[in-house]
Amino acid sequence: MGVVIPLEEVTPERRVEALTSLVAADMERVNQAILGRAASHVTMIPDIANHLISSGGKRLRPMLTLASAGLCAYEGSGHIKLAAAVEFMHTATLLHDDVVDGSDMRRGKLAARMLWGNEASVLVGDFLLGQAFKMMVEVGSLACLDVLSSAAVVIAEGEVMQLSAAKDMQTSEDDYLAVIRAKTAALFGAACEVGVILGQRPKAEIAACRSYGMNLGISFQLIDDALDYGGTSAKLGKNVGDDFREGKVTLPVVLAFRRGSEKERAFWRRTLERGETGEGDLETAIASMHAHRALEDTVERARHYGAMARDALELFPASAWKTALIEVVDFCIERVH
Amino acid sequence: MGVVIPLEEVTPERRVEALTSLVAADMERVNQAILGRAASHVTMIPDIANHLISSGGKRLRPMLTLASAGLCAYEGSGHIKLAAAVEFMHTATLLHDDVVDGSDMRRGKLAARMLWGNEASVLVGDFLLGQAFKMMVEVGSLACLDVLSSAAVVIAEGEVMQLSAAKDMQTSEDDYLAVIRAKTAALFGAACEVGVILGQRPKAEIAACRSYGMNLGISFQLIDDALDYGGTSAKLGKNVGDDFREGKVTLPVVLAFRRGSEKERAFWRRTLERGETGEGDLETAIASMHAHRALEDTVERARHYGAMARDALELFPASAWKTALIEVVDFCIERVH
Repeated sequence: MGVVIPLEEVTPERRVEALTSLVAADMERVNQAILGRAASHVTMIPDIANHLISSGGKRLRPMLTLASAGLCAYEGSGHIKLAAAVEFMHTATLLHDDVVDGSDMRRGKLAARMLWGNEASVLVGDFLLGQAFKMMVEVGSLACLDVLSSAAVVIAEGEVMQLSAAKDMQTSEDDYLAVIRAKTAALFGAACEVGVILGQRPKAEIAACRSYGMNLGISFQLIDDALDYGGTSAKLGKNVGDDFREGKVTLPVVLAFRRGSEKERAFWRRTLERGETGEGDLETAIASMHAHRALEDTVERARHYGAMARDALELFPASAWKTALIEVVDFCIERVH
Repeated sequence: MGVVIPLEEVTPERRVEALTSLVAADMERVNQAILGRAASHVTMIPDIANHLISSGGKRLRPMLTLASAGLCAYEGSGHIKLAAAVEFMHTATLLHDDVVDGSDMRRGKLAARMLWGNEASVLVGDFLLGQAFKMMVEVGSLACLDVLSSAAVVIAEGEVMQLSAAKDMQTSEDDYLAVIRAKTAALFGAACEVGVILGQRPKAEIAACRSYGMNLGISFQLIDDALDYGGTSAKLGKNVGDDFREGKVTLPVVLAFRRGSEKERAFWRRTLERGETGEGDLETAIASMHAHRALEDTVERARHYGAMARDALELFPASAWKTALIEVVDFCIERVH
């Protein structure tokens, strides 16, 4: 059982290869910065940070910073620290999210909080956020600092919004979009924007890259939320059904609920709102989603935002960077198991 | 039962009055900034932030930023936002601390986590930290951003250090000092330093004000830790014995343990390390501290750092600001019930 997404000849892994190879040399420097800044004489800090950092995240966000700097032919080295800062902001969010969600797993490994406790996860998240700001300050661009500190506020706001919307079947598609714009897309947008700011490009190009990142982020999160009801945990490192168990009202749920019968709505209220779940409920949830094309339409929405991301880049002349960034959109959407 | 600190004719409340009245007009603007920046359409954010903000903290840290700007005759308005940012950094730390410590009470009110949950406390802390950075960026001084982002890293490091040292009777006085330098004194130091940086004063004056703040912060925390074994909860808003129940190895404990008999050490190991506490144990702990002058000597240490704080200001010519800052040292030490 899973979301049926047509497989094209080019696999998702190959699609992101162009970007990966373009940023390879810079990414090596970013990884050095990440490791160096996760260091501390308080050994619990590198232990936890490296547990998460080494667990094979895609590093998509820092790659976007490097690529947007590349797109603008930026020749300095500020993009390295900004990319590392973006990844630290993301890592800090993951550490805090796992505490907030009570998650056991992250990227196929035990969540840090399961190994070191919630307390340490909260504090090491704070440490990484502090280091992220320190790196931004070192780069010295107030405009970039503005973009990234604003993103930090919006992300936290989005997380609180998500917490308020949890277990609430009144959540509308608009509410849901507001949450993912804030908690996911804002950092994608900021990651892209700062690369162009460093390149000292005109406002229209900065706005275009931000739009690319924002729309890519929305698309990325929509697919994540669809995968949570259809992926295979072995490859994703994320157990299918996490959102269901945590009572998260994501778009597939919103659509299935709106389109469902009274009986189905009662099911969603019992399982997501009241948290009364038992054997077979996840399967019922997925079946209901398929019956109402909730997953397919979530993927359709993702394609819509993906198209906007692609169009945003039209402003830029053809280049290997542009091609690679456009391929990332396809990668995000076609991530299948 | 309580720490016997000689009461002088001038009460602690009166001692801080000079500072309070000097900064009154600026503080009004800081409070406006604080309220404005705690606002959000996500209502849980201002609810939680205002719960803590309105609970009558002394706002000592932002007052220090205002006063150090005053000491340097700074005439701009950057100190307002930096003071608000310092208070937000502190508030974020309190929200996260209460989650980490599992505290029920804060400033005599139920801790935010008891009313809105740990999840929301973590996320609203992140929001406030983000807003703090946003305000700093708006002020636009990279030097101030450097000082405050470095402090954020050091504070988080200190909190993790404290977590590692918790329930560990091997903790030495040096270990303890390293923790409070990081978790408390770093922000006091930074709060003072940024005011002088804004005033564009020479390096020696910046270092002097930082030293004043750091030593004041150490002194402040030492007294807090002594009060935790001798204050009265009604006025302090902090239950006596919190540190004891949370297994925190503070200086009064370190001294009582070092100076105690084998039987007393066994007592500390049972209660603090293994967390096996029962009726009468807190009283026994306090009696043991008195028997070994652990509380008195903790206050003595506080006086020592207080003297260093005072001396650091010698560099500055006499002024109402200088007098007020020196009085703050006495206030911190003589805070008795």
